[in-house]
Amino acid sequence: MTIQSGIQPQAATAFGALYAEVQQFYAHQMQLLDRGECERWAATFTEDASFAVPTLPDPVVGRAGLVAATSRSTVQLAEAGQRHRHFIGMFDVVERPDGALDVRSYAIVYASQTGGESRVHRVCVCEDVLVRVDGALQVSTRRVSRDDLA
Amino acid sequence: MTIQSGIQPQAATAFGALYAEVQQFYAHQMQLLDRGECERWAATFTEDASFAVPTLPDPVVGRAGLVAATSRSTVQLAEAGQRHRHFIGMFDVVERPDGALDVRSYAIVYASQTGGESRVHRVCVCEDVLVRVDGALQVSTRRVSRDDLA
Amino acid sequence: MTIQSGIQPQAATAFGALYAEVQQFYAHQMQLLDRGECERWAATFTEDASFAVPTLPDPVVGRAGLVAATSRSTVQLAEAGQRHRHFIGMFDVVERPDGALDVRSYAIVYASQTGGESRVHRVCVCEDVLVRVDGALQVSTRRVSRDDLA
Repeated sequence: MTIQSGIQPQAATAFGALYAEVQQFYAHQMQLLDRGECERWAATFTEDASFAVPTLPDPVVGRAGLVAATSRSTVQLAEAGQRHRHFIGMFDVVERPDGALDVRSYAIVYASQTGGESRVHRVCVCEDVLVRVDGALQVSTRRVSRDDLA
Repeated sequence: MTIQSGIQPQAATAFGALYAEVQQFYAHQMQLLDRGECERWAATFTEDASFAVPTLPDPVVGRAGLVAATSRSTVQLAEAGQRHRHFIGMFDVVERPDGALDVRSYAIVYASQTGGESRVHRVCVCEDVLVRVDGALQVSTRRVSRDDLA
Repeated sequence: MTIQSGIQPQAATAFGALYAEVQQFYAHQMQLLDRGECERWAATFTEDASFAVPTLPDPVVGRAGLVAATSRSTVQLAEAGQRHRHFIGMFDVVERPDGALDVRSYAIVYASQTGGESRVHRVCVCEDVLVRVDGALQVSTRRVSRDDLA
């Protein structure tokens, strides 16, 4: 098949490998979060990562803060008999000259009540910068916005 | 379908590159739409593209018509304090002998009210023909159906 | 996990091809189900496949059983004027030494009433083992859990 676009097949192949790696990275990362594996989840961020959400005045910085925030949520959900799933996709991936990746994606959070209903909880846009540390992708900056907030 | 299985590694690699390109194309295209970038969105269709939706008696043909339709929606949503996100995925990609692509996918439209709730707005099936123009993918035909309509 | 990072380009390319093949496999498989193509859908499982869901005491085993179960659902949905769409994604793919694949994914089931509303019906986690039969992927084991059940 010589279907590749305007660009050389080699570049198309490299993009294909990168795009799959990005998708696998996010699938694994979000599944760790939803399983309450907070330490392993935080380890997918750089040591000094910055995570900004609209409901906090300042970004959370560093893994200890990330673990603390998500551990709290995990406990609260369990106590409320709820499960959250973060379904992320729609990755718009742009590679910088230095190899860092700008990734803009959509994340839908679903909430289910044990013995009750499942529903859409949040619709979010996620803007990340991914970098390579010892060969593996990590999030160095994450900025999340929510569609229900102005 | 299963064209990439049981075949030589080279063909599997080419399919991987193509599949990633298709996903990146759709992610970028839908994000343009949701940002109200109507001109740039319309430029991801061929000059004479045809776009059929169940709520119009005839397809919209050509970029000017596409810009007009989506600009109208963008204004209406802003006035209503609503945001829509088109989350597309589940791409079933079949390459034709001439290189055109038949892509059948699912698109979920989420609606969020500022200061209110987020919810599923529409569940759609999207049947596209993609072609290459100057090396880049463009939609030449799109046919959208909605699950809530007979 | 992140097995494909920090490794040789060749391995990254192979993972990219495999990941695309897995995505294409699931997109096609779920679309067959939602179209009520029960025989063709069942043919994407191995002859002796096992399919476990939380609402049945024992797994369904073998294609005849799979066809029977989904044919029943297809008829019931049509009679109720409903459509279901299975939107699967978030694939966490781990290859075993023997080439079998462990794939953990999320599947959201949307329900639409003709002339009515669309909504989230179920939020599921899908744990599969995929194997190659005559070069093509097939599901040998599927275990589905639902977030609304304890």
